[in-house]
Amino acid sequence: MQLDSSGLQVLSREECLCLLAATPIGRIVFTDRALPAVQPVNFCLDGDGIVIRTSIGSKLAAATRRTVVAFEADEFDPEMRTGWSVTAVGHARAVTDPAEINRLATLPLFPWAPGSRDHYIVVDAEQLSGRRIIEGRPV
Amino acid sequence: MQLDSSGLQVLSREECLCLLAATPIGRIVFTDRALPAVQPVNFCLDGDGIVIRTSIGSKLAAATRRTVVAFEADEFDPEMRTGWSVTAVGHARAVTDPAEINRLATLPLFPWAPGSRDHYIVVDAEQLSGRRIIEGRPV
Repeated sequence: MQLDSSGLQVLSREECLCLLAATPIGRIVFTDRALPAVQPVNFCLDGDGIVIRTSIGSKLAAATRRTVVAFEADEFDPEMRTGWSVTAVGHARAVTDPAEINRLATLPLFPWAPGSRDHYIVVDAEQLSGRRIIEGRPV
Repeated sequence: MQLDSSGLQVLSREECLCLLAATPIGRIVFTDRALPAVQPVNFCLDGDGIVIRTSIGSKLAAATRRTVVAFEADEFDPEMRTGWSVTAVGHARAVTDPAEINRLATLPLFPWAPGSRDHYIVVDAEQLSGRRIIEGRPV
C-alpha cells in the first residue's frame, strides 16, 4: 500500500475509476469570471470520460467550453472519520457530434434537477488521483 | 420560496450558514500551478468564517495564501434524487496572530487525516449561495 506524505493511501487509476463508476454525484470545478467556481452534478462514467448533462445556456456550459476543469467525487463516514476522494483534471468539451450524442443518450444518466438538460459535456480524466483515509479517528 | 432559472430553490444566507454549521466536510477549490484544484477538508464554522486545519508545508497552505478561493459543501439523497449545496467564495488567509490561533484551537475541529495539522486557514464567506432540489425524481 502506497502512502503519501500526509499518511493517506494513494489510490491507483483503476481504483479511482472503480470508485467513480459507483458514485452518482461529483463536483465540477472551473473558473467563472476569474473566480474559482464549483457545482455539484450527477454524472456517468464512459470509459475514462466523465459525462454530465446540463442545459445549453447554463453557466456551466459556457464556463467549461474548451477549457481544463477539475472534477471531484468523494464519500466520507463522519462516525469513523474515514473516507476517500478522487479528483480528475482534464479538458472539458461540449459534445456536438450527433452520433456521439445519440450514444451518450443511452447511458443511465438522468438529471436530478428540473428543466431540460440535453447538452452533454465530457471531461477527459487526463490526470486522475485518489486518496483514502485508512485509519479513522472515531468520534 | 424563490426559484432560480433552473427550478432550484434559492437558499438565503442564513439557511446557507445553518447548513454549513451542521456539516463536517466540505471542499476547498483553488488554483494549483494554473490548474483548477479541489480538496476535501473537514471544517468548522466560526461566525461567517470557514476554518480549516492543515499542515504548514501542505500544497493547500501554499496555494491558498492570500488568494480568493471557493468552498463547497453539500448533501444528496441518491434514492430521492434530492439534496442541497452551498458555495462560499472569499479570501483565504493563514492565521498568524497567536491570540487568534489560541481561540481557534478551542473550536471542535479535529483533523480526520493523520499527521500534524496545526496551521489554520480561514476563508471569509464574502459571497454565499445555496440551492436545493425541492422536487426529487425518485429512482
